This record gives sequence, C-alpha cells and structure tokens, in this order.
Amino acid sequence: MGSEHVIGAVRRTLARRSLLCHPTRAARTVLVACSGGADSAGLLLALARLAPELGVTLVAASVDHGLRPDAARDVAIAAQQAATLGVPFRALAVTVPRRGSLQAAAREARYAALREAAAGVGAEHVAVGHTREDQAETVLARLLRGSSLRGLGGTAPRRADGIVRPLIDCARADVRALVIAEGLPFVDDPSNADPRFLRSRLRADVLPALAAIDPGVVDHLAALADDARAADAALRAAGGALLRRAGLERPSVAILARSRSAVRRCALARWAGDAPSRPVSRAHLEALDALVCTGRGEVRLPGRRTARVVAGQLVAAPAGGDASDKSA
Amino acid sequence: MGSEHVIGAVRRTLARRSLLCHPTRAARTVLVACSGGADSAGLLLALARLAPELGVTLVAASVDHGLRPDAARDVAIAAQQAATLGVPFRALAVTVPRRGSLQAAAREARYAALREAAAGVGAEHVAVGHTREDQAETVLARLLRGSSLRGLGGTAPRRADGIVRPLIDCARADVRALVIAEGLPFVDDPSNADPRFLRSRLRADVLPALAAIDPGVVDHLAALADDARAADAALRAAGGALLRRAGLERPSVAILARSRSAVRRCALARWAGDAPSRPVSRAHLEALDALVCTGRGEVRLPGRRTARVVAGQLVAAPAGGDASDKSA
Repeated sequence: MGSEHVIGAVRRTLARRSLLCHPTRAARTVLVACSGGADSAGLLLALARLAPELGVTLVAASVDHGLRPDAARDVAIAAQQAATLGVPFRALAVTVPRRGSLQAAAREARYAALREAAAGVGAEHVAVGHTREDQAETVLARLLRGSSLRGLGGTAPRRADGIVRPLIDCARADVRALVIAEGLPFVDDPSNADPRFLRSRLRADVLPALAAIDPGVVDHLAALADDARAADAALRAAGGALLRRAGLERPSVAILARSRSAVRRCALARWAGDAPSRPVSRAHLEALDALVCTGRGEVRLPGRRTARVVAGQLVAAPAGGDASDKSA
Repeated sequence: MGSEHVIGAVRRTLARRSLLCHPTRAARTVLVACSGGADSAGLLLALARLAPELGVTLVAASVDHGLRPDAARDVAIAAQQAATLGVPFRALAVTVPRRGSLQAAAREARYAALREAAAGVGAEHVAVGHTREDQAETVLARLLRGSSLRGLGGTAPRRADGIVRPLIDCARADVRALVIAEGLPFVDDPSNADPRFLRSRLRADVLPALAAIDPGVVDHLAALADDARAADAALRAAGGALLRRAGLERPSVAILARSRSAVRRCALARWAGDAPSRPVSRAHLEALDALVCTGRGEVRLPGRRTARVVAGQLVAAPAGGDASDKSA
C-alpha cells in the first residue's frame, strides 16, 4: 500500500464530502489536531502534501490534558512530527474537571482548546484524525447501547462548528503504514489498549470476531454511518416541514396521522422539545405516536408537562393543569 | 416468567402491528406454520389461547422438506402439538430443488406450500414463529454483510402476501419456557446448531459476546429493525414523490439536486429500476448521485444502459447508443 494511496483517499474525501468549504469565505487555514499518535501524524502528513494544491496553510496543535505522566512526551513527539513536515506548531494545555466521565470531560476540554486555538490563528477548520475504523467502532458502540437512527450516523465527517475528519474513509492500518514508511516518529496511546474502555474491547475483541465472519465489516459499518446520517437528516427535514404544516404550537392530529410514521415521529420529537442534550426517548415517542393515532389518553413529557388531544389538536400543558387553558 | 407474559405480548403485538388486519375483509382463519420446534409450538399455543377473543379459527400446518431423515418425526411432533391444543392439522410435503443455496430453496418451497395451503383452507394469514432473537440475528447478519437501511429493517412482522410474525416482540427463552410449562412436546432443530450456517455462529458466539458488553443488545437490534423499516418506507415514499415531480422518464436534474441526498437516492434507485430481486448497488447510486449533482460524465446502469445528463434531464439509453435519440 503506497503512501499515494492514503493521500489520494484524503484528497477524494475532502472533495466528495466538501470538508474544507466554509459558508462565507474560502478556507485558508486549517488547524490540525495532533496527539503524537500515528493516526494524527498521518493526517498531518497527508494534509501537508495536499496543502499546496488545496491552497491552505496548516498549523499543528497538540493538547496536554495533564492526566498522564507521558503527556509532555506525547506533545514533544507531535512537535517533532510538525517540525519534520515544516508545519508551525502550538502546544495547548488544558485542565480537565475531575467529575463525571473523565474521557468525556477530556474530550470536551480538548475540543474547546482546539476551537480557541483555531480562532487565534484565523483557522476556519480543525482537522482531527478519526479513521474508518474509529467510525466503525462508534457505530458498533451505538448499536450495542441501543441507538436511534441518528446515533448510527456515528461521527460526522464535517461538523457545523468547523471540526472535520479527512481520514474518515482511510483504513487505520494504511495510515500507520504511511507514517512508518515516511519515518515520522509517533507514540502508541496507552488508553487505546485499556480494556476498561468499551472502545478498546470493541477494537481488540469484537471487531476482529466480526471480521472473521465478514472481512468487510468495517467498510460496511462505516458506509452504514453515511446512510444513517443522510436518512436522519432527510427525515428530520421532512418532520420539520410536517410540523409547520400541522401547526407548530398545537399541531393538527389529523395532519400528523396522515403522514408516514418515521416522519411523524420526527415531527413529534421536535414538537416535544427534542434536543441533542435532552433527546426525547423512544418510549415517549411511541406513546405520543399512539396518542396522535388514537386521539385517546395522555402522555407525560419531559419537563413536567402532559400531552393530550384537545379538539383535534395535540396540546402540551403543565402536568396536572388543564390543557385547554393554554389557549388563553 | 408466567405464560400470561408471552400471551399478553402476542396480544399486544397483534394489535400494535395490526397483524391480522386484511385489506378487504375481517380475517377469520389463520394458518399457523409449525416445524415441531419450540418457537412455533409457542406460537400455536399463544394463538390458540387468543383465538376466541380474536374471533379467528386456526389451522396448523407442517412442511416436510424431504431433506432430513428426522423430518417425518418433526411433522409427527407438530401434529401432536396441534392435537393437544385442539387445532386441525395439515401435513404438507414439498420437493426442494437441489441447486443454489439449499436453505434459500427450502425456505422458498416452504412458503409456497404454506401459501397454497392457506388458500386451500381460506386463511387470510400465515403465522410463522420468528422471535425477537431471530430478528436481532437477521439485523446482525445484514450489518455484517453490508446492508442498506432497507436491509436493516430485518424481517417484516407483516408482509403484503399475508405472512405475519406474532412472536416478533417475544424473547425466545420466554416462548420455550411457556411450551415447557404447558407440557407441549417439541424437537430441537439440529440445523440451528450447525456452525456452517452464519445464523448458528451469530447465535452461539457473536450475540452472547455482544450481550456480555450490553445485555440489552437483542432488544436494541430488534428496535433498530423497526426504526430502519419505518425510515426506509418514508424515504422511499418521499423518493417516489420526488421522481414524479422531477419527471418519471427523464427527471429534471435541477429538481433532483435540490432535494436531500437520502430522498434523491431513493428517487434515483427507483428511476434506475431498483427491485427487490435486482437492487441497484450502492456504487451505482453514488455514481448516479454525483452525475445529477455535477451534470458531468456518464454512468453504466444494470441491463446494458448508460445514464447521462442531456439538456438538464437525466436520460438512460442503451450503452453505446445516443441518449438524445430516445425522445423520438
């Protein structure tokens, strides 16, 4: 597998997924997040090779979370990778609050520091090194935990806040081979091998067992993520349009009931105040759907509200209150 | 787990999924497919208990595929189950053609015989014994093999040809416990334990390994099947409507390109002649999608045709021919 293979794949991903398009201006600067590991070393290398033809300037940045004794060494290795490739480098330090999930808190602090650094250097995008295997692991983790279609979309290759993932269509082994072939130094992240983490178990045990049955399983899971993300986006758009037709505040149950159930449920989720931080549960949606289709009963909603049907309209009122009062 | 648990679950499934609704008349007779195994014994038992309140008459039927020496014994056990429950019984014999996948050929012959027997006794529906675990195994097999969203829908609880699956929301272990508690005889299907079959490996190795990570994995996969089936139905309906707006024969690429990609791809699949027996591949759809969005190039379609954009319309012509001739 030649290095041109990975670089060509990154070129196609950038184009096909429009990763470096900015809504208001041409992207000129990309901040590349480097952990010191092989994946992000390969990302930096591929982007450094493509920078002239893309017309972008790169800045590499590495975040020290202050959590592991080796962190300073990892940052130093990342700095060495950047120096080898002639890319300016920033070392960023963050303090991770010690509460809740340490992994989640570290990720949040890391992305905040990267976005701040991007703003500081005028970068429109932050490139991070997730590979196709990372995507497959995310999809598998969501499947195991019981995810909606939205969750199966995995990690978005391009986020509204400027985070992009140019390696999302590359195999991890190819990226690593490229980094080794080009003689870049890198570290192996010890947390990757920690069996306490679900992702490590998926990587070490589950995916190899599945690949023994079908060697294409990583490709298939990654392709499914693309399909699920596109399906979810289309259904949410259709659900939003349906809710506008039916009435945003007190939608007509007759109009809702005529729609396909997947679209109706997206409309009901939006009506019930669905948000990424507080998604409306499947059980709530099923109950709301039954309420709309039968017109009978009432459904408890998050936030101490109750939904019921009044005069052919779906109405939410504070639990215990009289829904019909709300029209006053 | 009391027997009322399974029977109550079947009652809810029949109602919630409208399994015994017939498009033109009230269902009066249900043919129940019995293999002699525990799942279908539980199905027959649950339906026999519910028959009076549902107002339906049952007929049990068992198919001898002539493939295993034990087949006659299995049919005799199924007959015994039916006799115990006071349900009339039909033994059906089929000849399975010895070519291609034996499992697939046996399934096809079995369903044909069951449909014929149903027509013979005036049954509107054929009930078969798939459980929630069967559904989870189907979804997992499709995931491994690389399925579209449509495939993730798994096995439909209710098919247009009258096949219904009243146990689809029941756990296999609960069904088996019910059959044992009620003292019905049953056989264990030896093909279930044959490691040559993908399903046996999923059942014996993969699902238990996944359940060790999340005990709810079977529920999650089965729920995903419902979500995926609903999403696919909604997207296909939207794709069909989009194609009618854009033009069925020579759709306007401007109208197609304005749509969400998931809906556009459903429209393109339908335009390209997608059918369950000959689905349009993901690669074809991606190429068609790129053709519509860029207006450039041409795409080979199944059936020796070529798609290209002529005067703002998507046109299919025999490969090598001139697409613009087709308007004559």
